Amino acid sequence: MSTRVEIPADTSAAAKGTAPLIAVSGHGKGGYKRGLAIFDVVLRLGAVAATLAAAAIMGTSDQTLPFFTQFFQFQASYDDLPTFQFFVIAMAIVSGYLVLSLPFSIVAIIRPRAAGPRLLLIILDTVALTLNMAAAGAATAIVYLAHNGNSGANWLAICNQFGDFCQKSSGAVVASFIAAVVLLVLIVISALALRKH
Amino acid sequence: MSTRVEIPADTSAAAKGTAPLIAVSGHGKGGYKRGLAIFDVVLRLGAVAATLAAAAIMGTSDQTLPFFTQFFQFQASYDDLPTFQFFVIAMAIVSGYLVLSLPFSIVAIIRPRAAGPRLLLIILDTVALTLNMAAAGAATAIVYLAHNGNSGANWLAICNQFGDFCQKSSGAVVASFIAAVVLLVLIVISALALRKH
Repeated sequence: MSTRVEIPADTSAAAKGTAPLIAVSGHGKGGYKRGLAIFDVVLRLGAVAATLAAAAIMGTSDQTLPFFTQFFQFQASYDDLPTFQFFVIAMAIVSGYLVLSLPFSIVAIIRPRAAGPRLLLIILDTVALTLNMAAAGAATAIVYLAHNGNSGANWLAICNQFGDFCQKSSGAVVASFIAAVVLLVLIVISALALRKH
Repeated sequence: MSTRVEIPADTSAAAKGTAPLIAVSGHGKGGYKRGLAIFDVVLRLGAVAATLAAAAIMGTSDQTLPFFTQFFQFQASYDDLPTFQFFVIAMAIVSGYLVLSLPFSIVAIIRPRAAGPRLLLIILDTVALTLNMAAAGAATAIVYLAHNGNSGANWLAICNQFGDFCQKSSGAVVASFIAAVVLLVLIVISALALRKH
């Protein structure tokens, strides 16, 4: 494990460009891949934060209006919309997967040239991205409908009444899209690390 | 290019299991990867069919009811719902990308050990999967709403009136999910082919 190669610690530019040029030996490749692996762990922590935020914001987005009729009280919660329930569950699952995947990502730092953990990570990351985008797309459709309504189907916009609820669910959707972008970058990193070069 | 290695033509089981066991030489690895590449082309053609079907079914899913009031005629079309418009556009883009990616997939058959085309395919496939799932998730949310409505937001189900429209859009959503599964398998194949082994 003795090596003189500098490990590019946290900048992707250094990991991508400089390291393989400095040393083209086996040690150099290890350093390049180790840099990718460290970047992977950092991004993974960011994705955990984004998915947790998405689930938490959506999960707490209930609003009760301060007036009610004889028949019912006006209240909006993520529980009322099955799509938002699915969103919270999916984000929680993705978040849990990302936490559980951290050890494998750390193994990739210690053994930068092992293909097994990388292969596992890229496949499971793709599945997580799929789940994430399904939830994000579905929630976006409903949030759009809540904001704009639809005259053809006679669905009225509810954001005039439930402003806070709409704002929170929009925020959750944005967080889920950030998580999707991070997952996309994670998959690209895994693909670069898998390449034999 | 003279080789005695049998190329596993179209079965994934053969491509995964048998080929590397028969010959562990460089030729054997090439055959294994060539089998994966052929499987990749076949799956890619299937994904083209699924995405084209999704776009076409959704694009032709208009229905006009045989009665009208003084104010408007009852009519449903994918044009009325921005989510379904996005769905048709996204499916057309994914379908177009898959057709354009076929040459790269064929290059991977001819040169099974080249990492460049594989890397390009896995990254662009992941982007296509992301777009596909966003469209599929969004359309699913709207189709679910059209079938079931939502009492909390006072959105009524419209499938009682527009049965044909709902059936066609549901079919398009199913086709898009099939395309998503095929894309997921394509990414796994690319990851397996990228592994140095």
